[in-house]
Amino acid sequence: MAAIGRILCISGPNLNLLGKREPAIYGRETLAEIHKRLEARARSLHVAIDARQTNHEGVIVDWIGNATDEGEDGCAGLLLNAAAYTHTSMAIYDALRATSIPCVEVHLSNPDAREVYRRRSYIARACIGRVAGFGGDSYELALEGLVRWLQRDRPRS
Amino acid sequence: MAAIGRILCISGPNLNLLGKREPAIYGRETLAEIHKRLEARARSLHVAIDARQTNHEGVIVDWIGNATDEGEDGCAGLLLNAAAYTHTSMAIYDALRATSIPCVEVHLSNPDAREVYRRRSYIARACIGRVAGFGGDSYELALEGLVRWLQRDRPRS
Amino acid sequence: MAAIGRILCISGPNLNLLGKREPAIYGRETLAEIHKRLEARARSLHVAIDARQTNHEGVIVDWIGNATDEGEDGCAGLLLNAAAYTHTSMAIYDALRATSIPCVEVHLSNPDAREVYRRRSYIARACIGRVAGFGGDSYELALEGLVRWLQRDRPRS
Amino acid sequence: MAAIGRILCISGPNLNLLGKREPAIYGRETLAEIHKRLEARARSLHVAIDARQTNHEGVIVDWIGNATDEGEDGCAGLLLNAAAYTHTSMAIYDALRATSIPCVEVHLSNPDAREVYRRRSYIARACIGRVAGFGGDSYELALEGLVRWLQRDRPRS
Amino acid sequence: MAAIGRILCISGPNLNLLGKREPAIYGRETLAEIHKRLEARARSLHVAIDARQTNHEGVIVDWIGNATDEGEDGCAGLLLNAAAYTHTSMAIYDALRATSIPCVEVHLSNPDAREVYRRRSYIARACIGRVAGFGGDSYELALEGLVRWLQRDRPRS
Amino acid sequence: MAAIGRILCISGPNLNLLGKREPAIYGRETLAEIHKRLEARARSLHVAIDARQTNHEGVIVDWIGNATDEGEDGCAGLLLNAAAYTHTSMAIYDALRATSIPCVEVHLSNPDAREVYRRRSYIARACIGRVAGFGGDSYELALEGLVRWLQRDRPRS
Amino acid sequence: MAAIGRILCISGPNLNLLGKREPAIYGRETLAEIHKRLEARARSLHVAIDARQTNHEGVIVDWIGNATDEGEDGCAGLLLNAAAYTHTSMAIYDALRATSIPCVEVHLSNPDAREVYRRRSYIARACIGRVAGFGGDSYELALEGLVRWLQRDRPRS
Amino acid sequence: MAAIGRILCISGPNLNLLGKREPAIYGRETLAEIHKRLEARARSLHVAIDARQTNHEGVIVDWIGNATDEGEDGCAGLLLNAAAYTHTSMAIYDALRATSIPCVEVHLSNPDAREVYRRRSYIARACIGRVAGFGGDSYELALEGLVRWLQRDRPRS
Amino acid sequence: MAAIGRILCISGPNLNLLGKREPAIYGRETLAEIHKRLEARARSLHVAIDARQTNHEGVIVDWIGNATDEGEDGCAGLLLNAAAYTHTSMAIYDALRATSIPCVEVHLSNPDAREVYRRRSYIARACIGRVAGFGGDSYELALEGLVRWLQRDRPRS
Amino acid sequence: MAAIGRILCISGPNLNLLGKREPAIYGRETLAEIHKRLEARARSLHVAIDARQTNHEGVIVDWIGNATDEGEDGCAGLLLNAAAYTHTSMAIYDALRATSIPCVEVHLSNPDAREVYRRRSYIARACIGRVAGFGGDSYELALEGLVRWLQRDRPRS
Amino acid sequence: MAAIGRILCISGPNLNLLGKREPAIYGRETLAEIHKRLEARARSLHVAIDARQTNHEGVIVDWIGNATDEGEDGCAGLLLNAAAYTHTSMAIYDALRATSIPCVEVHLSNPDAREVYRRRSYIARACIGRVAGFGGDSYELALEGLVRWLQRDRPRS
Amino acid sequence: MAAIGRILCISGPNLNLLGKREPAIYGRETLAEIHKRLEARARSLHVAIDARQTNHEGVIVDWIGNATDEGEDGCAGLLLNAAAYTHTSMAIYDALRATSIPCVEVHLSNPDAREVYRRRSYIARACIGRVAGFGGDSYELALEGLVRWLQRDRPRS
Repeated sequence: MAAIGRILCISGPNLNLLGKREPAIYGRETLAEIHKRLEARARSLHVAIDARQTNHEGVIVDWIGNATDEGEDGCAGLLLNAAAYTHTSMAIYDALRATSIPCVEVHLSNPDAREVYRRRSYIARACIGRVAGFGGDSYELALEGLVRWLQRDRPRS
Repeated sequence: MAAIGRILCISGPNLNLLGKREPAIYGRETLAEIHKRLEARARSLHVAIDARQTNHEGVIVDWIGNATDEGEDGCAGLLLNAAAYTHTSMAIYDALRATSIPCVEVHLSNPDAREVYRRRSYIARACIGRVAGFGGDSYELALEGLVRWLQRDRPRS
Repeated sequence: MAAIGRILCISGPNLNLLGKREPAIYGRETLAEIHKRLEARARSLHVAIDARQTNHEGVIVDWIGNATDEGEDGCAGLLLNAAAYTHTSMAIYDALRATSIPCVEVHLSNPDAREVYRRRSYIARACIGRVAGFGGDSYELALEGLVRWLQRDRPRS
Repeated sequence: MAAIGRILCISGPNLNLLGKREPAIYGRETLAEIHKRLEARARSLHVAIDARQTNHEGVIVDWIGNATDEGEDGCAGLLLNAAAYTHTSMAIYDALRATSIPCVEVHLSNPDAREVYRRRSYIARACIGRVAGFGGDSYELALEGLVRWLQRDRPRS
Repeated sequence: MAAIGRILCISGPNLNLLGKREPAIYGRETLAEIHKRLEARARSLHVAIDARQTNHEGVIVDWIGNATDEGEDGCAGLLLNAAAYTHTSMAIYDALRATSIPCVEVHLSNPDAREVYRRRSYIARACIGRVAGFGGDSYELALEGLVRWLQRDRPRS
Repeated sequence: MAAIGRILCISGPNLNLLGKREPAIYGRETLAEIHKRLEARARSLHVAIDARQTNHEGVIVDWIGNATDEGEDGCAGLLLNAAAYTHTSMAIYDALRATSIPCVEVHLSNPDAREVYRRRSYIARACIGRVAGFGGDSYELALEGLVRWLQRDRPRS
Repeated sequence: MAAIGRILCISGPNLNLLGKREPAIYGRETLAEIHKRLEARARSLHVAIDARQTNHEGVIVDWIGNATDEGEDGCAGLLLNAAAYTHTSMAIYDALRATSIPCVEVHLSNPDAREVYRRRSYIARACIGRVAGFGGDSYELALEGLVRWLQRDRPRS
Repeated sequence: MAAIGRILCISGPNLNLLGKREPAIYGRETLAEIHKRLEARARSLHVAIDARQTNHEGVIVDWIGNATDEGEDGCAGLLLNAAAYTHTSMAIYDALRATSIPCVEVHLSNPDAREVYRRRSYIARACIGRVAGFGGDSYELALEGLVRWLQRDRPRS
Repeated sequence: MAAIGRILCISGPNLNLLGKREPAIYGRETLAEIHKRLEARARSLHVAIDARQTNHEGVIVDWIGNATDEGEDGCAGLLLNAAAYTHTSMAIYDALRATSIPCVEVHLSNPDAREVYRRRSYIARACIGRVAGFGGDSYELALEGLVRWLQRDRPRS
Repeated sequence: MAAIGRILCISGPNLNLLGKREPAIYGRETLAEIHKRLEARARSLHVAIDARQTNHEGVIVDWIGNATDEGEDGCAGLLLNAAAYTHTSMAIYDALRATSIPCVEVHLSNPDAREVYRRRSYIARACIGRVAGFGGDSYELALEGLVRWLQRDRPRS
Repeated sequence: MAAIGRILCISGPNLNLLGKREPAIYGRETLAEIHKRLEARARSLHVAIDARQTNHEGVIVDWIGNATDEGEDGCAGLLLNAAAYTHTSMAIYDALRATSIPCVEVHLSNPDAREVYRRRSYIARACIGRVAGFGGDSYELALEGLVRWLQRDRPRS
Repeated sequence: MAAIGRILCISGPNLNLLGKREPAIYGRETLAEIHKRLEARARSLHVAIDARQTNHEGVIVDWIGNATDEGEDGCAGLLLNAAAYTHTSMAIYDALRATSIPCVEVHLSNPDAREVYRRRSYIARACIGRVAGFGGDSYELALEGLVRWLQRDRPRS
């Protein structure tokens, strides 16, 4: 089993408020706590994790564009919870298409079970998979799925 | 009548150009002049006002997310003229849903009387009301409506 | 500041039931009480008000068609809460287009925040502005917006 | 089994022509004859019936708005054959929503088996049930369904 | 050539304002003047004309429903300018379907050349023909077309 | 009055769970109890009833296809609560079209008052009528409507 | 009253078959006979008529493009029965827009009363009016409407 | 941490062909091998698994309807890969709604990245979450997500 | 010319009723008689035929999934008249996509000439061709087309 | 078996390029070769064939309009491969409707398996059947289907 | 740099009227003048140009089909201003797809900035690029773009 | 020929990756190289160029809003390749509408030939023209078109 590089985990708009707003819906866990859990899981899977959050569509495009898959230190995969931009951002979709790094779409809730306008995902079309509905666990499960995918060396179609 | 905290007034893309561009349509009043009028009205209504403008969707999300309704100094209400983002930004909509601070939608012109694609407002669904079509007066009327609403202590549904 | 004529305020179907039905949603204030408040505000703005209600689309068309803006006694402006006819009546829309008297659309609740089929407003296309979501206050704020608009002698586009 | 008040039966546009026009489709029974049959059935169910017809949308809104469910003599339930207004009247829909009196939608023919534009029923959304396709019998069956519903004291959701 | 009965000519909402409002678009001729011209043409065609106007959808339904084609004195044909109700009234459409009297749709302007929502005509589906775009002449031409149609005794399909 | 043959009553997917699942919505009555009530009503109407349930679309198509209206013992009419298949099964619709046995559509709740995707009924187009919204009573009322319809010997169009 | 030039009357695809095919629907009158009647009417209105037929969209575009309104002999107006091209030809629509000669849309039957895809008329948007549903009489009535329109010297908007 | 009952894993149409058909797309792993892996994972999570496959919509409805969450031995949760029925079966959706057992939607590929008509999921609306795109791993990850969800005793909304 | 294996001919819902129901539309030939004719044609084309019918979508999926193209005895091609499932079954479509056996779509009538909802064929997208509108002859012609296609050894795209 | 007249076979736009362009898709057979094969088949079916090609919509309308079914020498049936005009030409559709000669729609490829905008066939609505997807064989099979149809003397509905 | 063959420039319906009709919109330059300028530019780019105009869709299909890219004298590229056929002609689209000669779409105005129905371009899907909005300059710029494209010997995808 | 001011060239999201990602599609030329070529062309056209790139929608709005057309040094025209924001940004569209500086839309590829959701361009409605599909040459050709347009001093409509 070959060594896998760093995983970049990007969380989008309003996710900085996790645990502070609407705990009845989203739970009391903050994004920092989710990141901590994710790091633990990453260690057990023998990969490094780099977890960030931004409310800016352009910053997400920057981060994906700047990620490089070259070298031991390079970025091997992406976890992306684009939140509201999932449904509206063609720019992030194009960024994902322009990179050869595989990406998994992550959601805390299950968007397909919500409002009609949350059922369209621009981003899905450029992702290898989706994990949705498990709160903070969605990140952990997506990480495991991504790492296993990378270990199989499956070519990205 | 209980004291009301600060009101945050956010104006979105292209509104920095008010009074300089297309005066035949939007009048000769600049955003700074509207802000001045709004502050006068706020004083007469015994509330403080904090008026800002940005062309960046992510900055609007930041501002709404950072606003807190805690303490005397906290933000008691929002006036939001999201301009073009009114019709396209699910991220701002989610920011409004995530906060418990009531928001009034403001427009200089009457979007429903314009192009078809200006009739859809994502933001309306998370606002208590709308004032549109009165130029700079829209801000003043919206402020009065919001302050009265807060004074009735009506719970936000 | 020139003297302004009479303002005609028209309320449409089911608004006669205000305060008697669904007080949890629409409050306990009756239409008569709203009319009383509106008259007080009109006095302070130095205009006369003529407030009426009907459940009949044809009667609203009659009233708008019969209103004349000629003479000191004429009708200077319209406040129109067309309720359900807002979304279905092309006849009221045509009546508004056929008159040169400016009209402001008024709503107690915020229709854009409700069912999809309440987002289409035929009437908006022939109105200078909209005030929505402030209960009885919507009428008062709309009156002030309309009177200010008339005082600026802004030509109706 | 508690005594049930009066049932108001409203028939809408063009139903005054029943039995005179297109007997091949609608049969030879007039609305007066249907009303007579309905009264007989009402007596056997120990309820009073008040059956009316109008071609005017506004009059239907008036009748529903004026109906009160208070007292022994009050209106306990509605039978409504809104005919063409079924598919176009948001005002009648709002009138039904504003009342707490339960309503059953009645049709002589089966609208869902006819033209596409007869498949949308605004009114259905505010009714407890529908009986359609049995000619004059639709009224009788709807009455029995409504009375049984009232006798179960089932809360209206 | 058999004698033809009376022709009923119905004009709908806002047509009472003809000649008074927007003369640049609709001309300076009033509905009374159009009716006078129509009567002259009727005389030359040896038919009687009964021309009316109302702003009420229900009244149009009443008039069509009450028209009878029996006897020398009966109504032989309909000219209908339903104005805005052309595009929204299924009740008038049903009234036309329920009668055996042939109807011609009349318009002063050419609705198909105007806004998209004026292109749908419920009423057309129950009319033998349409004359549109000739101002007051539309009524005269429609009358001639209808009378010729009646003289051919063509069965209505 | 001629003797009427057997009535076949078919209930579709998930109706076997009635009374066991979600009693708050569907009540505590089981399908077996509804069948018992239906049999009592059938006896009073002097018809035989054959009531069945299946979760399989193909079995419903089989049952309708195998029903024959020949002989005293034949099937004279159908009561069909196709549940979810109402909205998706063109195969059941074709089965109904292929038979000359009249069918009444039955629903416990009122589908038109529920989600948008429950408003389309494939089956309605091949049914003489619909009874919806009265719980178990819907079956009984539909049976009476069907039997009366059969006794009038009205030809199926 | 000024002298009016020649009127060009264009009939489109399949109209050469009139009177030979489907006489039950379109009558037994041939296009040649309609042209003869039209010429008689033209003489009584003191205008010349030039009536042609083609099955080719491009030929219709040629004819409209070649028509010139210059000189006594020029083309003063167009009668156009584009038949099926009414609903599909943007090229004919552009040809009409490019000319300053006014055009009236003519139809033997009433397209709005037929299939849904016959309700869209590209051509209507560039026509001053429409006459439809009177068989061969549609041409005559349209001619009179056009000539009157030209005699009023109303500018084409 | 309370003991969790049995997990029922249902795979729908064509999944019996896994590993035999189109190995380039779906891999060489058979459904039996995926079931074996799933059982191993279940053991490590201390739950029992009952994995089945069918091509019949009605059988899936039966299995969900027959599952009971009562007793130690009862069914605690569902894993459902409904394959093509995901997009068309309202009956399976209703079955899921009628049960109180939580369900996770599983897909081998990522349907949102495929044809448009695979983006609508009826089933999602009744599921707590979705895992898609990881081949056989989707089942394992979904199982872990479901078990963690059950261990938190989170009430199903 | 190489020997061709067995052809599997599948007929779907309601086709078991052929010849018994609606002979005016579908003719008096039963499915058994069509199968007999098909066998005769198969013999003349030197192929074996295996013709079956079912009303169950799942059974069609089973049959397609179980068909194997291996060996002399294997299934070389499919004739599929899916009837109503043509328009609704994504499961049959997936079954066809998962097999490498070529399929021809067969219809007795011409679905594109019928109701709008019969114009969408899920199945067409996975078929090499279609024969429709020739009654029982459609099967024979489809068989010849399929056999010729197989004899050309044209690779399936 | 009565003698059958001449069969007219029309091929539309771009089919003159067959065999020269994109042989990988459409094969190396030219239209002339297909016509030769078709003539051979016609001889074996004892009918005469008249095969033509044009890129002009209007010419196809001319040919269909000029075809007459009168006399021994008349045109007994049509084979029509309208190519791209299949999806856009209402004029050809009207031409087919205006003739009493039966027509079969022919396609080399399977349009329903291609782009969405190739799924709408105007022409299908006026054809007795369709053969698609068999390359040049489509013509031969369609001819046999048409001849058999004519020999049954089945009236065209 | 290899020698490039002849460039064929095709202009479609109504473009023969350029400079004569609506000079305020399209300028005073005629198509002949544009062709002259284009020839000058072609010379400076060392290519030959063959510029034509037609109002007939079928002629455009003929010209594209007859163009051959073989030999020094062959056609190396296409400039196509299909005008109104841009939005409606699937036949021209198929002609472009059938040829291996690269094509550039040319427009005098900017169709995407005009009516909604001018935003759909069938032709774009078979073109390497588009130049729009520069009047006669659009032709010159498109020619340069095409020649550079050809000089790079970029394979057409 | 008057001197022309500076041209501002703005490139949007992901264009910083040009030449590094997907060279097979977008070529090996970097944005810096395209800028260099553009500057050379600008010199030959005697204009100055200011070329920038950003991934942020708000920054594009800032740049357009800050551009002024006053003085010799002012911005005379815009070249805008908004990439993905072309299809989603109403804010950039509003920025273009608010400025009097003419803008040309630039694309490397031909968006109308790609996915359906790339065919809608918000930005086109506020641009004088478009050049698409020529890779880096698109910039050069657009610059020439813009400069020629400016030299004609054509007023912007």
